[in-house]
Amino acid sequence: MKFTRFQVDSTIYTGVIIEGVVKEITGDIFGDWKHTGLEFLENEVKLLAPIEPNQIIGIGANYVSKVEDLPSELPDIPVFFFKPTSSVIGTEESIVIPEGIDQVKFEAELAIIIGKEAKNIPEAEVLNYVFGYTIANDVTAPQYFHQDGHWTIGKSFDTFTPLGPVIETELNPFQVHVEASLNHIEKQNSPTELMIIPIRKMISYLTTVMTLKPGDVILTGSPVGAEFVGEGDVIECEIKGIGRLRNRLATAKILT
Amino acid sequence: MKFTRFQVDSTIYTGVIIEGVVKEITGDIFGDWKHTGLEFLENEVKLLAPIEPNQIIGIGANYVSKVEDLPSELPDIPVFFFKPTSSVIGTEESIVIPEGIDQVKFEAELAIIIGKEAKNIPEAEVLNYVFGYTIANDVTAPQYFHQDGHWTIGKSFDTFTPLGPVIETELNPFQVHVEASLNHIEKQNSPTELMIIPIRKMISYLTTVMTLKPGDVILTGSPVGAEFVGEGDVIECEIKGIGRLRNRLATAKILT
Repeated sequence: MKFTRFQVDSTIYTGVIIEGVVKEITGDIFGDWKHTGLEFLENEVKLLAPIEPNQIIGIGANYVSKVEDLPSELPDIPVFFFKPTSSVIGTEESIVIPEGIDQVKFEAELAIIIGKEAKNIPEAEVLNYVFGYTIANDVTAPQYFHQDGHWTIGKSFDTFTPLGPVIETELNPFQVHVEASLNHIEKQNSPTELMIIPIRKMISYLTTVMTLKPGDVILTGSPVGAEFVGEGDVIECEIKGIGRLRNRLATAKILT
Repeated sequence: MKFTRFQVDSTIYTGVIIEGVVKEITGDIFGDWKHTGLEFLENEVKLLAPIEPNQIIGIGANYVSKVEDLPSELPDIPVFFFKPTSSVIGTEESIVIPEGIDQVKFEAELAIIIGKEAKNIPEAEVLNYVFGYTIANDVTAPQYFHQDGHWTIGKSFDTFTPLGPVIETELNPFQVHVEASLNHIEKQNSPTELMIIPIRKMISYLTTVMTLKPGDVILTGSPVGAEFVGEGDVIECEIKGIGRLRNRLATAKILT
């Protein structure tokens, strides 16, 4: 099932997309919901980020370029980071390059949406707590990384977390490729089996630290090939089965 | 006005405390709210963390020990970090030391609650966006800091962000001391003028990066004197005008 949020005129709806028809739903996507009967054609609506996340948790540097490079031992402490929920935009919205810099980095990622409260979950049970999957672009301004290693500011600017176009609940996350193209030229294309810390282990570990909640979004890392982009560039992140997340780079308007 | 959340039997309420009487309110504490008429004596209720934060943003290493040590130039990129909202507990709840370690660090802090959406706010206007103030204990397990400088895991364990006991909206944040005692022995006691990056500058800077939202909680850093504590220790963080945030350290129960 494909869940999304969408806008028609100035009204924002939650819905599901079935064979090109966007059907409004009401209720809790993680629990009980029902159709309202209101329907639109997909080209009549503006898709928004498919979720307003409770929190966004990312993992750093989580892909190798080929299976032979996968390490035999995993790190004791993975690099996790948070991104603010205020950084979320949807497909077709502009990524705004902060004032004072010319370029930012794109990173296509498989994003996991948690659907049930999860604490101390064994790896074998992790997928029972996953609601679905979307695509994220973990936009980053490494120019704002702190010299002591703190990434917070460089990952927190408004518009730095495009999500979408939909949440697919039926995906097999182990059989997809994470792809990105820059101005229609392929830059990233890796199967998720190239993750250093695989999905079940990543989420199981997180639940030993913190209680994950419905609406928490976990960015599972980006394949090799991400690079700097500037004004006017168009990034398309794609995972077959979910769709394509397309965003253009814009510069900040100077406020007067 | 002192806002809080509280529990009676198994019901959770939002309320204000006026002269020892806890009065339930309904509505939006950041907007329109009203009294329901339901009242309790303060000793009849269990105070909870006074807010379920939208997000929690902290600043690293933000105090000097004396005014003469304040740097003449501020850092280009302050060290900010996020803590998960799942780490919040209230006063009198136990801070749980994670399995595998014996001690954690306490850090008493003045916490600022944002009341209005804030983007690109000049320093002079910052306080117009502040709803109120509470006390935080930014509990940390530095054993879980990543060698490359990422603090996320070490600050994210459940129970690692005691908040409370109330949100005081009338406080003058420039005329208070942030105090902490360990088993009734004073360990921290600094005026907020010893902040390296002062409140207005800190929040103004944050709003140049991200849109702050109502319910965002900003931990403004901890005075010198924080130290490691272990099972059975009692930390009391105090800011006169807000109250006292008291938590005991407990060890994780091994799950079977």
